[in-house]
Amino acid sequence: MKNGAQYRKTLRQLRPNLFKWGKPLGDVTKNLATKLHVDAIAACYDAAFDPEQASLFTAESHLTGKRAHRWNTLMRSPEDVLANARMKRAQFQRTGACHGATCAGWTMLNALWAVTWEVDQARGSGYHARLERYFRYLEENGLATAGALTDAKGNRSLGAAAQPSIDSYLHVKEVREDGIVVRGVKAQICGVAAAHEIVCVPGGGLKEDEGAFAVAFAIPRDVEGLTVVETRRPSDTRDEEQGWDAPKAGGVSQAFLLFDDVFVPNERIFLQGEHEYAALFISIFTALYRAPIGACVAGQGDVMIGAAIELAQAAGLSQKTFQERLTRMAINNETTFGMGIGAIFNGKAHPSGLWIPDPLLSHVNKVLVATLPYENKRIAQEIGGGIVETGCFPSYKDLTSPLYGKALLDSLAAASDGETRARLARLLEWLTVGGGIPGCLNGGGSPDGARVVVRVLEPWKKFAEKARQIAGVK
Amino acid sequence: MKNGAQYRKTLRQLRPNLFKWGKPLGDVTKNLATKLHVDAIAACYDAAFDPEQASLFTAESHLTGKRAHRWNTLMRSPEDVLANARMKRAQFQRTGACHGATCAGWTMLNALWAVTWEVDQARGSGYHARLERYFRYLEENGLATAGALTDAKGNRSLGAAAQPSIDSYLHVKEVREDGIVVRGVKAQICGVAAAHEIVCVPGGGLKEDEGAFAVAFAIPRDVEGLTVVETRRPSDTRDEEQGWDAPKAGGVSQAFLLFDDVFVPNERIFLQGEHEYAALFISIFTALYRAPIGACVAGQGDVMIGAAIELAQAAGLSQKTFQERLTRMAINNETTFGMGIGAIFNGKAHPSGLWIPDPLLSHVNKVLVATLPYENKRIAQEIGGGIVETGCFPSYKDLTSPLYGKALLDSLAAASDGETRARLARLLEWLTVGGGIPGCLNGGGSPDGARVVVRVLEPWKKFAEKARQIAGVK
Amino acid sequence: MKNGAQYRKTLRQLRPNLFKWGKPLGDVTKNLATKLHVDAIAACYDAAFDPEQASLFTAESHLTGKRAHRWNTLMRSPEDVLANARMKRAQFQRTGACHGATCAGWTMLNALWAVTWEVDQARGSGYHARLERYFRYLEENGLATAGALTDAKGNRSLGAAAQPSIDSYLHVKEVREDGIVVRGVKAQICGVAAAHEIVCVPGGGLKEDEGAFAVAFAIPRDVEGLTVVETRRPSDTRDEEQGWDAPKAGGVSQAFLLFDDVFVPNERIFLQGEHEYAALFISIFTALYRAPIGACVAGQGDVMIGAAIELAQAAGLSQKTFQERLTRMAINNETTFGMGIGAIFNGKAHPSGLWIPDPLLSHVNKVLVATLPYENKRIAQEIGGGIVETGCFPSYKDLTSPLYGKALLDSLAAASDGETRARLARLLEWLTVGGGIPGCLNGGGSPDGARVVVRVLEPWKKFAEKARQIAGVK
Amino acid sequence: MKNGAQYRKTLRQLRPNLFKWGKPLGDVTKNLATKLHVDAIAACYDAAFDPEQASLFTAESHLTGKRAHRWNTLMRSPEDVLANARMKRAQFQRTGACHGATCAGWTMLNALWAVTWEVDQARGSGYHARLERYFRYLEENGLATAGALTDAKGNRSLGAAAQPSIDSYLHVKEVREDGIVVRGVKAQICGVAAAHEIVCVPGGGLKEDEGAFAVAFAIPRDVEGLTVVETRRPSDTRDEEQGWDAPKAGGVSQAFLLFDDVFVPNERIFLQGEHEYAALFISIFTALYRAPIGACVAGQGDVMIGAAIELAQAAGLSQKTFQERLTRMAINNETTFGMGIGAIFNGKAHPSGLWIPDPLLSHVNKVLVATLPYENKRIAQEIGGGIVETGCFPSYKDLTSPLYGKALLDSLAAASDGETRARLARLLEWLTVGGGIPGCLNGGGSPDGARVVVRVLEPWKKFAEKARQIAGVK
Repeated sequence: MKNGAQYRKTLRQLRPNLFKWGKPLGDVTKNLATKLHVDAIAACYDAAFDPEQASLFTAESHLTGKRAHRWNTLMRSPEDVLANARMKRAQFQRTGACHGATCAGWTMLNALWAVTWEVDQARGSGYHARLERYFRYLEENGLATAGALTDAKGNRSLGAAAQPSIDSYLHVKEVREDGIVVRGVKAQICGVAAAHEIVCVPGGGLKEDEGAFAVAFAIPRDVEGLTVVETRRPSDTRDEEQGWDAPKAGGVSQAFLLFDDVFVPNERIFLQGEHEYAALFISIFTALYRAPIGACVAGQGDVMIGAAIELAQAAGLSQKTFQERLTRMAINNETTFGMGIGAIFNGKAHPSGLWIPDPLLSHVNKVLVATLPYENKRIAQEIGGGIVETGCFPSYKDLTSPLYGKALLDSLAAASDGETRARLARLLEWLTVGGGIPGCLNGGGSPDGARVVVRVLEPWKKFAEKARQIAGVK
Repeated sequence: MKNGAQYRKTLRQLRPNLFKWGKPLGDVTKNLATKLHVDAIAACYDAAFDPEQASLFTAESHLTGKRAHRWNTLMRSPEDVLANARMKRAQFQRTGACHGATCAGWTMLNALWAVTWEVDQARGSGYHARLERYFRYLEENGLATAGALTDAKGNRSLGAAAQPSIDSYLHVKEVREDGIVVRGVKAQICGVAAAHEIVCVPGGGLKEDEGAFAVAFAIPRDVEGLTVVETRRPSDTRDEEQGWDAPKAGGVSQAFLLFDDVFVPNERIFLQGEHEYAALFISIFTALYRAPIGACVAGQGDVMIGAAIELAQAAGLSQKTFQERLTRMAINNETTFGMGIGAIFNGKAHPSGLWIPDPLLSHVNKVLVATLPYENKRIAQEIGGGIVETGCFPSYKDLTSPLYGKALLDSLAAASDGETRARLARLLEWLTVGGGIPGCLNGGGSPDGARVVVRVLEPWKKFAEKARQIAGVK
Repeated sequence: MKNGAQYRKTLRQLRPNLFKWGKPLGDVTKNLATKLHVDAIAACYDAAFDPEQASLFTAESHLTGKRAHRWNTLMRSPEDVLANARMKRAQFQRTGACHGATCAGWTMLNALWAVTWEVDQARGSGYHARLERYFRYLEENGLATAGALTDAKGNRSLGAAAQPSIDSYLHVKEVREDGIVVRGVKAQICGVAAAHEIVCVPGGGLKEDEGAFAVAFAIPRDVEGLTVVETRRPSDTRDEEQGWDAPKAGGVSQAFLLFDDVFVPNERIFLQGEHEYAALFISIFTALYRAPIGACVAGQGDVMIGAAIELAQAAGLSQKTFQERLTRMAINNETTFGMGIGAIFNGKAHPSGLWIPDPLLSHVNKVLVATLPYENKRIAQEIGGGIVETGCFPSYKDLTSPLYGKALLDSLAAASDGETRARLARLLEWLTVGGGIPGCLNGGGSPDGARVVVRVLEPWKKFAEKARQIAGVK
Repeated sequence: MKNGAQYRKTLRQLRPNLFKWGKPLGDVTKNLATKLHVDAIAACYDAAFDPEQASLFTAESHLTGKRAHRWNTLMRSPEDVLANARMKRAQFQRTGACHGATCAGWTMLNALWAVTWEVDQARGSGYHARLERYFRYLEENGLATAGALTDAKGNRSLGAAAQPSIDSYLHVKEVREDGIVVRGVKAQICGVAAAHEIVCVPGGGLKEDEGAFAVAFAIPRDVEGLTVVETRRPSDTRDEEQGWDAPKAGGVSQAFLLFDDVFVPNERIFLQGEHEYAALFISIFTALYRAPIGACVAGQGDVMIGAAIELAQAAGLSQKTFQERLTRMAINNETTFGMGIGAIFNGKAHPSGLWIPDPLLSHVNKVLVATLPYENKRIAQEIGGGIVETGCFPSYKDLTSPLYGKALLDSLAAASDGETRARLARLLEWLTVGGGIPGCLNGGGSPDGARVVVRVLEPWKKFAEKARQIAGVK
């Protein structure tokens, strides 16, 4: 296992293939566009050596039986998946933000654990053993992995093979003896800046003629041919500044990945051409991913609650004034968290050893995750008032202006000083309309996709039959 | 274990102390005011001998290790509580209604299992051994127990001891060497008509001067001095008729219990005067009760979905027309069900052997149970149309009138015949504005009470501290 | 103008062609199945002679310039339509119920005023003059008119002409020199029991081969060949009883109309075969009808608020405890009321003299009317508690039982006596799950129909164009 | 009347007393921090000379009878207030943003019209004639006025006089023969950058000892002693850039105003010390302001709908896929718009000549305005997908990078090219989580304040009385 400093050091050794604003980002541990996310992950590494946090941030390895960073292990029991959820909530409570590099890539590798087992059973393909070796490599080196699922997609009414640009979907361009050459664009990928490795998987179910897109593999983040373009998010320039106009405890990183003929050696390929397993992968991945994400938005909601309480008190108002609404926020948070637990424990063990949460409840939770936090945002803004809703507050530079800064700050003094109110207001702004928006609506897939799964899994005919029986209809 | 016929037989042997419409109800297995509820419970007894249902409707006894009716056993694991939830959902799916006599009394006895253990630990009182013997008696005779918690209450702004009428709360009137004499009124008690025994417990936390109300005990339903008055519920006269104006697969039973100096022997007393344990009882009972009730409303919602689909199809419309709304209903159902599972598995074992679900998640679920089904009702009525919303449809007697019944039925013929449409419309009416309303809002306590628990259990200060840290406030 | 006594007298002179429970109802002013609705309408007649109410319940006739019952006049200005809305709210506040016989028939005649004008303009058909004479007849005799729109419909996926039973839709069976013979079934028709006349109109847009269904006319309620079957509504038997288990201030009446070869003289025919005007009629009627119905549900909501306050206070709780929720109810009520005013004043004068509210806002209001009252019901039940939600309370007969009635009532005594609590609880039950449900969801057509109109009327392309311009898209 | 060029010219003549980022902004017509808002107002001036728009953007003067910019006139009829609402909706449809300089100041002057009339009636104070002269001055010079209501406030639990810093509220520091000297801070003031004049009014009701804060007056924007600090809003730096990362059709301006001993001559004082009229002012102002703001959020919602349709189509999806949700958005928009019309027409004429909308309906509308748009934002983001929700999309600089811009754009090509998708995505981001957020929650006061008014105005006792009557309670 690595500590934060060791982790940062290994990141700095990677080739600088990240860009933003049309320019290379250089050292991701220092550039302010990525530093906050890296800092957040570094804290997760340090947590392995903190007696209070170690049980959450590490787990027993399924390969070696040794203690390992949790994101390097297989989730073999509901307790393992629940610990994942609890870790996510703790991360959000500490930084207010998403920790991409300890999340999606890990979950994809877990889903691939079961999928490669199935492919091997059916075809004797040997993927599973490769994946086991890769897992061992991650554990031995204590690596962080981003996970790339979503393709650039292009025209939504056309399949992958029918796009105006073939690069809209990541695909195998060439098969060599020693590996494959891949090409295309993955979009909106979380945590790449703070990861050593990137796991790539198909973004959806695939048809027979779409075999070129049925590819899963792992690559180093700085592999030759890969260009990573960090995206522009709400108020992100603020995150790159000094001062208190944005909190500095953590931050999101999301990127587009341009694969310009990237070579992947055979040992790192976990699916190649088995189009019929893309849907299986998606179904296992989403069940495993959407159960714990309720903990993410709960954790962010916890911070929203805390910031709303603090800001109200800073303005001289008691928590009681807003208690009915704060309780409503808590109910929303605990609902997505609790539904996740329900999905996890209603799951099943896969013969490969993976624990798979109940897909129906996981997808129901995705819909909740995509709606309930919006009510929390509205309430938080209502409690926070106008300085939160439209961020309508003087900037750090204005509040510290020698000319008029003091006059502004003095006039804002309440139960707390003006700076405190500014910091809290900016935190709530950041959480609800700024860089801290966690992407709960579309992150990990759209709620519409989840609704489709609910439609497919719910036993409508059984319900209709029950109704007929009760009604006495023949 | 008993089958349904044996169960009915034992019920008929009880003293006829039930009344409705100012008159004795006589044989509860035959009087139409109670028959449907008794039938539903009888089916649960029969289920013990049906290979497909036995695993749900029976459980291993914690006392004898033998198979017993589930409602005669202790819930010792999350799996036990989940099985309770699944049984509830199955019951609702089969009858559309609440099964009082297999529910609250059983859960109260489970909560008392832990509470009496605690009282004994603290005071050496011997209640726990009594309760164990009572459990053994229930198991040996395969009995059904109703549970009486809510008092008549009187003036809500006054405590139990300060009411205009002391009988507004059930209380100990006299302590004798061999037992106690109790008196007062319990209100809105479910399932009494179909139960052999009634478990009585305090309806809320109690203060030092309210010791007379701190009493828990069990009595035979037909005990001397007890008068049971069945309540009048929406459209309940219809349930007592022939024809299809109401479904006949099951039904609710709710009653007021008048205790007119009822004697309870010592052996059946499980709390007496320990006012400080009333709150503990309530907290354990509600945690245990409000986790699985999500399954009740889910089960009722399943039938609502089924009836809506069937009614739409009977009118010539396809399920697709309403799929987005049906999916919304399913999401609501699975949310209360899934949250219950979350609460159950996030719980803890009590040293007495009882499994106690997480109280925070249980009470969050209570709030969901009190709100989400209302959206389902609205959607079901929207799909069903005017003949459901206001029941605006000719009666059975009119649809079968020799004078004009045929003309009516012919004009209603669609994809199904008029009778089928009538039966389905009446089922949806019954579920949403009739005798089938399950009491999800206030059954098992009010959502406001649950919100108070959420307020007490949520770590607001921790959240505020996290917000301060992220905002960088000193 | 007539007073209530004169009105009742004329009703009693009609042929007794109403049935319920398979039996003739006899005198509608006395039979308890219809008496409450008749009483409510009688009070509206009396209001013409009450100085405080006369301005609302009467209006200046467009024909004679004299004061007339409002429901005998043409709505010529937004103020006229607003007065209709205010009258509806006042009616609901007084009786808690829908006043069918002063509502839909009148609105249909108003819509026909414009439609017949248009048909005459296009075809010189002479319908408009007939309608004017009919209006004069109504005014001179101070008559109440029910309005019949909805057909029995049969299979929703088939047109009127393709039904298994031709009688599923009201149609012209035979054309004679002096009139027509009509046949078929109209369903869920409000207020017939309290009306002297019935106006019949097409239930929707019609195609070229559906000319037989394009028929509008007026008939006496007791016309030969017409059988009226009153429907069975939630808890309606209770409305027909003595005691306090249901309020007695008013009530709904809804019926199925069986036309068994009914003759309509030419003078009373206002449309016959002009299928292309059916859609125009529907569009004018719904615009005019759905603007003021917000006042109905507001008026019912007002009573719900009042009953919730009273019941809470009767139980010893202050209004303050629930103020946040009561305010929410008021906001819902005023929203449907205010939107109606918006729709009314955003309307236009038709060349015939009729004022037509803005159809877009009227249909938006229909959707609000179909959703917001459901939240009010939930809140009212939450405030009222379990005795409201499932009506779980002893019946009048039990509360007055010589055997145990006193014991029950004494135990219920709180800030008010037990009878008061019972009466208020039964009122809230009646309003939310009983005979007082106003049919806001489907009454006057479904919200889905309204959504279709919104879809048709909203200028999507314009909005898209504006977005393109702002985004700078070429 | 002025055209846009003339308007800009007069703005440039003002003293440069605006600051942002700690620096003077210089020419507000050119500095990108304010230019967009100025451009938007300039277009409103030009509209006076555009035959299609003139009727909306101008009105007949109440003083001269001549055509004047609408924001220089008195609203004397419901039609006048409705035209205000329609103008707001048109402005939002054209720019997607709030037009501060044609809004609040104007509405305050209208409210002062009635208030000064009342003060004069009671005290013969002569304010009204001054205000009339000021109105004449505005009309003659075609000026734009910002309106400053909200004070910095400081501690919300303390009154104005008890704040730690007296400057938390704007107040009269000194009374001279020729005028007054004022001092303090007004916060979150809209449209100052684009206004010639600023109207200042009390921010709430005032007590007897708060006479110093009871002051209303008008000043030139560049008056000596006034420093204007523009606030930092979400993603506002983006608005100040080239490229398509933010739309450039308009924008908000919000500022803090530092009054450092500003002199106001008597002729421009409209209230001074009459603390008991502060509440009257607030009640008239809010009634007049909150009726039309439903049109603002409707107009913004229209653009949201348009952008969602366009973005979906650009991605290759048809409008139909999302029609149910688009219709829901339209219903929300038309509800706030229609409720405003209801409030307007349900109003009353004030003896001074001002038309005052119904305060109850206006405040109900404020609550709707503070909630319904949040659902629209969520739906818009759901339709738009991840590139909208978290703005997770490459920046303009990245999409135009010579190194990888073409690869990115090509991969995004769908039914439209990549740039089009970027522009539309950025518009939706801007509308929902960026610079275009209109401040509907707290703009013009908090929804909690509106709820208080609803509580005060709703006739609870009357409703309780109606319920008692219907229930038959004595």
